[in-house]
Amino acid sequence: MSRTIAVVAYPGVEILDVAGPLEVFAAAGEVMVRKGRVAESPYRVQVLAPQAGPLQSQSGIGLVADRALGRVSGGIDTLLVAGGMGTREMATDARVLAWLRRMAPRVRRLGSVCTGTFVLAAAGLLDGRRATTHWAWCDELARAHPRVTVDPDPIFVRDGNVYLSKIA
Amino acid sequence: MSRTIAVVAYPGVEILDVAGPLEVFAAAGEVMVRKGRVAESPYRVQVLAPQAGPLQSQSGIGLVADRALGRVSGGIDTLLVAGGMGTREMATDARVLAWLRRMAPRVRRLGSVCTGTFVLAAAGLLDGRRATTHWAWCDELARAHPRVTVDPDPIFVRDGNVYLSKIA
Repeated sequence: MSRTIAVVAYPGVEILDVAGPLEVFAAAGEVMVRKGRVAESPYRVQVLAPQAGPLQSQSGIGLVADRALGRVSGGIDTLLVAGGMGTREMATDARVLAWLRRMAPRVRRLGSVCTGTFVLAAAGLLDGRRATTHWAWCDELARAHPRVTVDPDPIFVRDGNVYLSKIA
Repeated sequence: MSRTIAVVAYPGVEILDVAGPLEVFAAAGEVMVRKGRVAESPYRVQVLAPQAGPLQSQSGIGLVADRALGRVSGGIDTLLVAGGMGTREMATDARVLAWLRRMAPRVRRLGSVCTGTFVLAAAGLLDGRRATTHWAWCDELARAHPRVTVDPDPIFVRDGNVYLSKIA
């Protein structure tokens, strides 16, 4: 059984927030195959974005989104929202927020990297939960989302099946 | 004056080897602008590849090459070859090796990340120099390139204007 690990990207995404988590799963699968434990990697990594195809990351490096949000085939095991300056637009995009609200109850694990937390918070998915984001943005997260309990200290916060990380 | 920092990518490249170095320069430029030291970033980051456009990295994440090798406009300040399984093909691609030999004397700094060292070595650009690569590949580098002095210990080796790093 293959598990889809999907990261939500967008123009202005921090490319390391996309590549970091996906590479961990890709490398883990590769090691399992090399050691003969499985015939093929149990992890399928996917980059999602509002639109499929090339997009420009925050630093200017071009990234390719495999699929548009909502065009995901099969289920998603782990859904992560990457950080980056582009979260400002993502966090006000009603279609993105509606898609996240629809997907959240259907994934095994939901999470974000860095300022990706702002998008999950804007979707209301962190209400009543503990959360964190990059050190520089914890105050703003707490101000903008009073129903979220922001903890600025830990590198990552897990609350139920929601995983929020300060950095990639 | 803007300095072009270019990383050579290719199908099967390790995406972190591309993004890691370029993000450092992009972030440094951003900080300099934010602090008011410069009006715009002194660094222009570029991803090069045998062909311009989308390419699939080793883990499956799609990356976009800004330009084809040989279609670079203006000079390159710092030219780096990224690592990844695709270096096997790159190191036997006569056009790539010829391009590197042509560019090497024209750049201020030449370098590689991880197994990118194999491509520079195959181009003969490390003959008589100290070099390193990822721990797992130092023996093979030394065997394949007896004119290169492989030092397996340091995280990075600098020999003149050539910088070789084990990892991103």
